[in-house]
Amino acid sequence: MAKKDVNIVKHIDLDSIQDPKFLATLNYDELNVLASDIRGKIIEVTSNLGGHLSSNLGAVELTIALHRVFDLSKDKVIFDVGHQCYTHKLLTGRNLDKLRQEDGISGFLKIDESKYDCYEAGHSSTSISAANGFAIARDIKGEKYEVVAFIGDGSLNSGLAFEGLNNVAHSDHKIIIVINDNNMSISKPVGGLSKFLEDISTSRRYNRFKHRYQKFFGKTKFGRWILRVSSKIKNGIKHLLIKGNVFTKLGFAYLGPIDGHNIKSIERALQRAKNTKKSVVIHAVTIKGKGYKLAEEDETGFWHGTGPFNVETGEPKNKHEGLISWSHVFADLTELEMKEHENSVLISPATFKGSNLEELGSKFKNRVYDVGINEEHAATLASSIALSGIHPIISIYSTFLQRAYDEVSHDLARMNLSTTFLIDRAGLVGADGETHQGIYDEAYLSTIPGTVITMPSTIDEAKLLYDESFNNHGPFFIRLPRTLTAKQDGFNDVNVEFGKWIKVREESKDLVVIAVGPSLRELDALISNEGVKCTLVNAIYVNPIDKTMLDEILEAKKIVIYDPYSTRGGLVNSVMAYLLEKKFKGSISAYFVPNEFVKQGTIRQQLERFNITPEDVLKELKK
Amino acid sequence: MAKKDVNIVKHIDLDSIQDPKFLATLNYDELNVLASDIRGKIIEVTSNLGGHLSSNLGAVELTIALHRVFDLSKDKVIFDVGHQCYTHKLLTGRNLDKLRQEDGISGFLKIDESKYDCYEAGHSSTSISAANGFAIARDIKGEKYEVVAFIGDGSLNSGLAFEGLNNVAHSDHKIIIVINDNNMSISKPVGGLSKFLEDISTSRRYNRFKHRYQKFFGKTKFGRWILRVSSKIKNGIKHLLIKGNVFTKLGFAYLGPIDGHNIKSIERALQRAKNTKKSVVIHAVTIKGKGYKLAEEDETGFWHGTGPFNVETGEPKNKHEGLISWSHVFADLTELEMKEHENSVLISPATFKGSNLEELGSKFKNRVYDVGINEEHAATLASSIALSGIHPIISIYSTFLQRAYDEVSHDLARMNLSTTFLIDRAGLVGADGETHQGIYDEAYLSTIPGTVITMPSTIDEAKLLYDESFNNHGPFFIRLPRTLTAKQDGFNDVNVEFGKWIKVREESKDLVVIAVGPSLRELDALISNEGVKCTLVNAIYVNPIDKTMLDEILEAKKIVIYDPYSTRGGLVNSVMAYLLEKKFKGSISAYFVPNEFVKQGTIRQQLERFNITPEDVLKELKK
Repeated sequence: MAKKDVNIVKHIDLDSIQDPKFLATLNYDELNVLASDIRGKIIEVTSNLGGHLSSNLGAVELTIALHRVFDLSKDKVIFDVGHQCYTHKLLTGRNLDKLRQEDGISGFLKIDESKYDCYEAGHSSTSISAANGFAIARDIKGEKYEVVAFIGDGSLNSGLAFEGLNNVAHSDHKIIIVINDNNMSISKPVGGLSKFLEDISTSRRYNRFKHRYQKFFGKTKFGRWILRVSSKIKNGIKHLLIKGNVFTKLGFAYLGPIDGHNIKSIERALQRAKNTKKSVVIHAVTIKGKGYKLAEEDETGFWHGTGPFNVETGEPKNKHEGLISWSHVFADLTELEMKEHENSVLISPATFKGSNLEELGSKFKNRVYDVGINEEHAATLASSIALSGIHPIISIYSTFLQRAYDEVSHDLARMNLSTTFLIDRAGLVGADGETHQGIYDEAYLSTIPGTVITMPSTIDEAKLLYDESFNNHGPFFIRLPRTLTAKQDGFNDVNVEFGKWIKVREESKDLVVIAVGPSLRELDALISNEGVKCTLVNAIYVNPIDKTMLDEILEAKKIVIYDPYSTRGGLVNSVMAYLLEKKFKGSISAYFVPNEFVKQGTIRQQLERFNITPEDVLKELKK
Repeated sequence: MAKKDVNIVKHIDLDSIQDPKFLATLNYDELNVLASDIRGKIIEVTSNLGGHLSSNLGAVELTIALHRVFDLSKDKVIFDVGHQCYTHKLLTGRNLDKLRQEDGISGFLKIDESKYDCYEAGHSSTSISAANGFAIARDIKGEKYEVVAFIGDGSLNSGLAFEGLNNVAHSDHKIIIVINDNNMSISKPVGGLSKFLEDISTSRRYNRFKHRYQKFFGKTKFGRWILRVSSKIKNGIKHLLIKGNVFTKLGFAYLGPIDGHNIKSIERALQRAKNTKKSVVIHAVTIKGKGYKLAEEDETGFWHGTGPFNVETGEPKNKHEGLISWSHVFADLTELEMKEHENSVLISPATFKGSNLEELGSKFKNRVYDVGINEEHAATLASSIALSGIHPIISIYSTFLQRAYDEVSHDLARMNLSTTFLIDRAGLVGADGETHQGIYDEAYLSTIPGTVITMPSTIDEAKLLYDESFNNHGPFFIRLPRTLTAKQDGFNDVNVEFGKWIKVREESKDLVVIAVGPSLRELDALISNEGVKCTLVNAIYVNPIDKTMLDEILEAKKIVIYDPYSTRGGLVNSVMAYLLEKKFKGSISAYFVPNEFVKQGTIRQQLERFNITPEDVLKELKK
């Protein structure tokens, strides 16, 4: 066994990388040093700019191996979700220094960014279906390339991934599926398939394999992650074909489990998969967050996605004294409401951590359900719980709620079942960009009969709406933006009848502003400062609209609608259609997000891009 | 073996049934006669009124056994989809004679109809998630009842069902899943899971079991379906626990396969499942369409859902001379377009037969993909096919397209990928009622950036739009209603620029009608007959709207919008918002479907219910 000192192995200057061809020239020691350097870069970038940390740290060796075995300018490697693509971006010559910034590169794959990006995502579990499509097209056109779906165990648990698996199993069009199994997904593993993957990973056969290399395990520490493989036992790494598991039952060849941090093992599995005629599942076991101790030890998903942080302490860099995020506001409220309404349960599709609800599981035994990345299931599950007289609270990101459009309609709204939806990250979301915008839900939920859509402009209104949602109004949606608000102690009573709007100020019958959400308060402050005389209406109930209030303001000379949290398909079109029906004679201006896929930037930058800041509205009012 | 003559066994008067309690008093011979009589009734009713035939004929014994082992007024039995519920409706005292009629009962389960209906559906694959919810609620409340998901193999193949399975496997809340496996779903079986179920069903163990009873098999013929079970071999029926299959891997107990037409076998399996503490999968093998020879021999799904038919010949009763359904129009067009565009593929989620496309599979080898009830997968699959330069055509029912809302947005529209969607059964659908209405897609697709939504009013326009959809406009949707139109030979050229509306008649600047779809032609005929002077605009492109045309008609005194195929969230609100922005001074009336869940009836009855017939619009025009 010829040991080499890592120190004498050459380092690659990451900034000098143009394309992944250089990888072919490196030996395994050099590759391991490269992996280590890439981890350092990922930690550096995310600690400065925020981003996906754990998923990227876990996928370094897998990505290097994929680039060595395949030519990604020709072979199609589909990164599921895309939240593990930083190594791929580095290896294909992209600079991460402006990652997720308005003038930088995306945090996800983008076809326009590189010829090595063959597909885009942001939502999970699309990779197998997409791989199936590439393989079908390849075979129809008689072309030759490999198609690889690179997917985490959390994404694999989703219904869409299963539909992909099920169709590929039935298909003659060969693909390779690489499962990056860290037994974590975003937070804890959920579901029978996770258990099955875990069963394999902890099986006798795998343990025997692991035993041989155990001296190489457990050495991991920051700055020195690399497990060196002795040449003597080079034949020890077998791509174990375990027969009779769930994948082979579905009709796949199965290779694994393999150590997903051992580049040589991965390459051998990939090579073997390349030489196999039928579709193959490669099961790679990895450590999420590998190389950053806090992330490795994380069991809640805290380090999955992060804001800027201090590398040494793990403390967030931005402290925001005196401010609190809306998701924190609603997490606190959820605890209160669940205490008050013992007949309620909380359901979330793998976003407990993201919505700051992770502590409620231990506080409310048997009343908190993490269903994994199963948005569709979450809504249908809620329907029968509601039918049984228990009130479901569903916490979900706006962008992921799209997945449950049909189930919200067919299983909840159609039976008019009382449920509270907390729509986190509603409106513009900033750095995540096109795939994660929360600007559509107001419009698409309005197309479902009987939905109640609301948005608070203050913490007190948040409490009011949350309380009201328990009063049997069918599916009741509360939108909360991805911004901060001033902390406050306790709550002040707000009296608003169900479905009614509120006049925040009433200083002019001629000029009326209808606004919504926390931006209304920013606008209100500007109006006060500038002494503009107008009536300001708080459209706290976005759908259905308050027609009584609209009838009151029909004589206005000018109405301005301000909804910077949605496209025009929600409040704006509803109000305008009603005003036309009522022969409104005045003029109208509306400020909303255009119906586009909105690129990354800060939320403020995105508002400025469309001229929909409170200052823009103020200018209009001052005309 | 004491044989009994079936003729001396008593018949139950099906019309006299009040509730299922009488079942406890019957012996197996009597139950088999009952099953036979129920089949006769189902054939009689569907041959008169249309409805789901095959699925109901296949589920008779399973339903009887469920009612004997469980008390459905207390235990929750969830009928997946609900298209197999006719036996259940008969056994719970409901008269099928006005099935699916405006003044009769629904073709699906309805909580308001009976205390024995605990859940509603119409879309597939919700039963396992719903069962999970009932079981969670039961255990939280400390109540005692069994929860059963009764699901076909086709529904089980869907992602939502998998999410349910995966979550139940992980859950402490026990349920029973009864798989009704006829190896058919709506048409042919699709996917790896189907193959797996088939593998079990054709396994040595099952064949041995089957062999013992083979003298009882193969005797099936119309009017005499019953397999008699000898008392001598009563122990022969074993609930075979096959270890190591996909369900046991996921953590379920597994019972099966059992003969799903043998009431005694089914009861034993259900009893055993009842006595088991963990969640159980019962795998029952049935013959779809059992008891009606044509349906048993059907391999295309022709007899899944049917219109009225002659029982002897199988011929449809309604001939509609000289008329053709819009789905037939588009089936013929699809053949033309696929011949012309060799670089295209056709994808459908298990509705090839329903959309009359079943013959295209053999005509276009390797270019036709039935993905099973996997709407989400269908859209994502199309995305990578489109990225590879092949044009996907997706044929899908409006109501099922809801399932793919996110995938249409995130995977197709976001990357602006050229695809043709044929939205079958757009608008009001008639007898299927609330769960199947196609009135929402215009609104919800409008909320997705970059979609093109269209609707032809003639066969020539259908050809025009289909042709145009290949010209790289991103996701291009063509809506076709569930109605008939006059047959024609060949096509007449229509010249319409992309995105532009057409003036069908221009006889008044004061009165302008904007209409859409075949109803426009009905209205046009009425206008001609009555000599009303108006301008009639064909809004063939529903989204985006034609602003140039709207600018031309801004001086009108009255504008009437007629879109009886959609709720107001589509064309109506878009046009009204634009008119308000442009300070339209005239009056406006709009005729559209209210945003409700619309109960069954004929399409004409539904139009009349909302006063949105062409005659209603004519009355308005004559004012």
